[in-house]
Amino acid sequence: MRDFSTDHSALALNTATLGHNLDGHGAGWSPEQVIDACAARGFGGIVFWRREIGRRAVEIGARVRAAGMEVVGLCRTPFLTGSEAGTDDEAKAAIDMAAGLGAPVLTIVSGGTEPGTKGLTDSQKRLAERVAALAPFAAERQVKLALEPLNPMFGGNRTCLMTVREALAICDAVGADNVGVAVDVYHVWWDTTLAESLAGARGRILGYHLCDWLENTRDMLLDRGMMGDGVADLKGIRRAVEAAGYAGFCEVEIFSGETWWRRPPEDVLDTVVARFRTHC
Amino acid sequence: MRDFSTDHSALALNTATLGHNLDGHGAGWSPEQVIDACAARGFGGIVFWRREIGRRAVEIGARVRAAGMEVVGLCRTPFLTGSEAGTDDEAKAAIDMAAGLGAPVLTIVSGGTEPGTKGLTDSQKRLAERVAALAPFAAERQVKLALEPLNPMFGGNRTCLMTVREALAICDAVGADNVGVAVDVYHVWWDTTLAESLAGARGRILGYHLCDWLENTRDMLLDRGMMGDGVADLKGIRRAVEAAGYAGFCEVEIFSGETWWRRPPEDVLDTVVARFRTHC
Repeated sequence: MRDFSTDHSALALNTATLGHNLDGHGAGWSPEQVIDACAARGFGGIVFWRREIGRRAVEIGARVRAAGMEVVGLCRTPFLTGSEAGTDDEAKAAIDMAAGLGAPVLTIVSGGTEPGTKGLTDSQKRLAERVAALAPFAAERQVKLALEPLNPMFGGNRTCLMTVREALAICDAVGADNVGVAVDVYHVWWDTTLAESLAGARGRILGYHLCDWLENTRDMLLDRGMMGDGVADLKGIRRAVEAAGYAGFCEVEIFSGETWWRRPPEDVLDTVVARFRTHC
Repeated sequence: MRDFSTDHSALALNTATLGHNLDGHGAGWSPEQVIDACAARGFGGIVFWRREIGRRAVEIGARVRAAGMEVVGLCRTPFLTGSEAGTDDEAKAAIDMAAGLGAPVLTIVSGGTEPGTKGLTDSQKRLAERVAALAPFAAERQVKLALEPLNPMFGGNRTCLMTVREALAICDAVGADNVGVAVDVYHVWWDTTLAESLAGARGRILGYHLCDWLENTRDMLLDRGMMGDGVADLKGIRRAVEAAGYAGFCEVEIFSGETWWRRPPEDVLDTVVARFRTHC
């Protein structure tokens, strides 16, 4: 096991942490500026969002590797279920972008409840069908698909997967080697059955995402906390993830419209490194 | 089993559905006006909030029964865990109020994560201790205590119980005959293990709360849907609750700052009755 107090090469930045450059939030930095700033601080990798890549996937991927880091993943496919579901062609374009970047993992946020249905059962079946249809296309391009369960507050329009247990059940239903799960502490910190669920993961954990759950969360989407500022048992969750065999990157992903997105990006990155060393 | 299309005597109104009379929302009705309007529409019972009762518990309880209905419950104790936890004396005052009203059940919303701790384990232990200390006081007054798990989005400052399974585990730890659980569809609709958890309830379901989860929930607290307007599988959840032995009231509790609290209360009550007959 790595000693994070002296080695943070396991640390990856999800670029959302710097504010997505949307609506006046965030660094306004180009991918190249993010790459240089992360490399300078000893990050081991970066996770991008599709909107940042455009047609420059190959170029940006090469630039990350030239800086001594890895492209850890890409966010994300269009929704695959619910009233805002995207097409297979849109999902395949995301897979191609991940392949172009050299990102080994593409994250899937499932999408919500299928129109005309209630609850989650029908939507989870539909999700399994769609993932099964996409998995071979992704495998040909050396891309793994990571199903990310979301906090139940995102049920309805964003997710039909609320727990790691459910995401692993979809993996079982799909039965493809390149389909696994992403574990994000913001979404799973509350799940007291997490360690038990993860124990059944058998090598299918494809990502581990860090932030914190603030005691007083003011906004579902945009009020994630910096590690150490909240109530999530980050060390306990990491132990459970590692006990389940995960040895990959720890990806920091903090959506924080009112706090961290308003801070200078250099300070945010320095804080991420410091908190990773002490709190994770 | 009742035929709800012809008999809605199982229907109870949680007065929050009419807006709590706070901040310009809601009916502005007195308890007596709520009682008369519910009785006129064939409701079987009412659940009040402490703020509406003041020192008039005995009087209001008698008024409900004189109108041919039951006081089904009282909301709620102060938090018992977390940084905003109340004292035992405050909790006992709530129990006394329930006894005065003749309310057989007092709801407990646990409160959040204990100061200085992470995750839920320590807070759940503290909750069990506090409930165990209060249970005999409540039993002497013929009041049952209903632990209500909340949607995980309320973790941090409002709850350390996220699932029925966890609430039942607290019941087991406390081991008192008058401690059980309340099942609210807003909080549990997403839990695909709900029926399995409820199967272990063995008579400990003390309340069943109805509303709906809107596909696009805009506010965690105040955007609950009217039954039928959302994605919760209301009939499936009712089947699970009844299969676990529950034969009590169906309590409609809709916090809806922008929609139902702005409608005339008579219309809200008529809609509740109509939707209960067709969607629940």
